[in-house]
Parts: sequence; C-alpha cells; structure tokens
Amino acid sequence: MEVFFSDRIEDGRVILSEEESNHCTRVLRHKVGDEISVIDGEGTLYMCRLIRVGKESEAEIIESVSSWHSHPYRLILGVCPTKNNDRFEWFVEKAVEIGVDEIVPLIGDRSERKVYKKERAERIALSAAKQSLKGAVPLIHDPQSVSSYIMAAPSDAVKMIAYCFDGNKISIKKALEGAPEGSEIIVLIGPEGDFSPAEAASAISRGFIPVHLGDSRLRTETAAVTAAEAVYFNFMK
Amino acid sequence: MEVFFSDRIEDGRVILSEEESNHCTRVLRHKVGDEISVIDGEGTLYMCRLIRVGKESEAEIIESVSSWHSHPYRLILGVCPTKNNDRFEWFVEKAVEIGVDEIVPLIGDRSERKVYKKERAERIALSAAKQSLKGAVPLIHDPQSVSSYIMAAPSDAVKMIAYCFDGNKISIKKALEGAPEGSEIIVLIGPEGDFSPAEAASAISRGFIPVHLGDSRLRTETAAVTAAEAVYFNFMK
Repeated sequence: MEVFFSDRIEDGRVILSEEESNHCTRVLRHKVGDEISVIDGEGTLYMCRLIRVGKESEAEIIESVSSWHSHPYRLILGVCPTKNNDRFEWFVEKAVEIGVDEIVPLIGDRSERKVYKKERAERIALSAAKQSLKGAVPLIHDPQSVSSYIMAAPSDAVKMIAYCFDGNKISIKKALEGAPEGSEIIVLIGPEGDFSPAEAASAISRGFIPVHLGDSRLRTETAAVTAAEAVYFNFMK
Repeated sequence: MEVFFSDRIEDGRVILSEEESNHCTRVLRHKVGDEISVIDGEGTLYMCRLIRVGKESEAEIIESVSSWHSHPYRLILGVCPTKNNDRFEWFVEKAVEIGVDEIVPLIGDRSERKVYKKERAERIALSAAKQSLKGAVPLIHDPQSVSSYIMAAPSDAVKMIAYCFDGNKISIKKALEGAPEGSEIIVLIGPEGDFSPAEAASAISRGFIPVHLGDSRLRTETAAVTAAEAVYFNFMK
C-alpha cells in the first residue's frame, strides 16, 4: 500500500504538493480516476480519487479514517543527538515505526553535539510514517537544553529519566506498570557521556522517575529505541 | 572500558591476534605491565597483564569472570536477511547490544535475497559484543532455508514464528509469559514478502507458536529487533 502526504486538505479535496504529486503521477504513474491513499500527518487517512494531475495534483475525498494505525498512548522521547548523526536518524526511523508522538532533541551538559538541525529528521519521520502506514507524523521539536525541557515538562505525564550512573532506580518496565491507556509518557535519554548528576537531580525534583533500561549496556540510540519498545510492550495485549 | 578478544587462551596466558595486538599496543599504546580486559567470546572476561608486546602480544591472566554480562535466557533469532544488507547488519548490532545468543540467516520461499555471506555480520557481532561489554559473542550461523531450519529446531525450546498474514496468532508478549529463566527461545522473522503460508503451516506443525509483534507495521529488521526486545523485557525485573 502506497501512502501520500498532504497538509492541504479542505472542502472534500486534497492537494498534493509538487514533490508528492511527482511521486504519485510520474514515478507511480497514477492517472485521473485512480484511487490513492493520503495521510494528513495529524492521524487521519483519506481514501481519494485523483481528479486533476499536474505540477500539483488534486484528489477528491471518498472516505476518511481517523486515528489511523494509532497507538493507545502518547509518547514523547527527549533524546540527546548522537555524535554520529546517522545513529540518531536511525533511532527516529525506528521510533516512528514502533510508535512515538513527539521527539525532542536535547542538548545536555555532557553532550558532544551542541547543535542539531531537525530538517533531515523531519523528512525521515514523514517517510517512516508513510512506510509504516501511520496517519500521524511525529512532531520533531527544535533542539533545547535538558534543563529547560525538564522545567517545561507537563506535570500530569508519566515522566522518566534513564541514566547510567548509580542511584536509586527502578526498571522502565516497573515504572510503566499500571499506566492506563491514553497516558502521556515522557522518557529522557542522555548523550554518550550520560546526563550530569545535576540534570538527573533536577529531573527527579520535577517528578521524573529515575529508571534503568535493564542489564544490557546500550548505545544512546539503542537506549532510545528500547524506551519506545518498553512503552509499546507495556500496552501490548 | 576497552575490551579485547582472544580465542587463544591457555595455561593462564592469553595471546592477542595480530589485529587485536595492533589495536591494543599501537592504537591504544598499551605497554608491557599494563592491565587489559579480554573476552573469550564464550562468556568469560579475563583481567590480564601484558607480558609481551609484538606482532602478536601475550598477557598473563590475573582474574577471570564467567558469564560476564550475560542474560537470563538463551535466544536464537532466525531472520531472513533484508534486500538492503545494511539493515540486516544494523539488526545484528542492535540484537547483540540487547542480548542474543545465535543468529540464523534464513532463506524463505519469498526471500528476495537468496544468498548471504556471514563474514561481515560476524565482525559486527564481535565489535558489538566488545562495545556493549559482553563476554559472549553470538554465533552467526551459515544461511539455511526456512523449511530445513524448522525441521531441525529443538523440540524443548519456546519456539515462535512471527508473520503478517491473517491467522490465529497471539502476541509475542503473551507467548513468552511464564517462560522460566534459562529458557531457550527461538523466534523466526520472515523476509519483506513475509513467510509463505506453507512455511507457517510447517512451523506450526512442528510446535512453533504463531505470534504477532503488536499493531505496528514493522520492517523486517525492526521486527527482528522488536522480538529481541520482547524477550529482554519479558525477563526484566
């Protein structure tokens, strides 16, 4: 199944951008009258019929499916980008396949990467959402500091910070137990050099649960995917 | 912590191969008298002192730790290599970090990749085991057909086959419930085109439990990592 994306959907019509139109009508050779599937990135799938093919193309909506292939929780992953950008982008692709709603690139006290450009991650998130047939495309936030994100985090979410240095921690599995469907869950994953004790202390004082991800020693990007899997399995029947 | 590998350990001595010796003594500049850590790939870590530096180097064993950073289960992942080899090698790296004992490259009825060379995967498994501080390096098997692997699979293991087409399946999470520590667990993951119904039927007739990996649509390599995570979380306290 091939899925296209459009953020221009109104009056029962969908406009495909030049890029999506090119893929739909030139690469895949769709013609006027063909049925195509379009996501709005907000969670809805539209079954449409092409009515105009051109530089931009237009389709009329036949049917719509809301919360298409959504998951029964709301997950925000705050992750410090890795030195090797490919590894972070791999995490973005995998987290989208498994299920994530927002990704916040975080710059920590010990981050070697202090600057992060989100444009490539946004493209990867869109193509992973289309490939894994999800109506919603996760939001990639602008990078921000760990300390400012901790201060801004909502108080009613299940909030966790995963770090490696010693401290009183429980497993992410235990921390998730009993979280009802629909919970908003926030997990923070540090850089290669880990969070600083000051960052961890600040998070804990703001209601973040200090967690570990089990006995295996995981790279930053593996830890971030493992956090997404922990939430995925917590809600799996 | 830097870990070296040697398969030549006898009489209280460890011999580092030319490649490991070069990394230890030229790249990292270790000298006679330095303490180094060496894994045998079978599960044991040896704390050693360098006693001879050369093309090959030699170290005497001070102390050994068996089952070093092992996991409380035995996991065999039978996975059909992806068209894009990078994706399969990424799975190998991640599965080793999370915890796996054997990886069996499988060629299914619908595999687009009918040939697989395991040498690169073996190197990736070794470096991932060293990087994630595991004493044991997973065994990468020679590729074999899905049907022959199903016939040869041990009868006393918890055996599962994950496929996408309809059928009477339970989640991998449910299938793992109650498996005691030390269990041998086998999970089969099909190619992009999925297993054939004949392969699934044959597996089921041989005691494989048909499982799904949840509601998300996962790429082959993501499904394989998700299976490793399912087992990891099943045994997490």
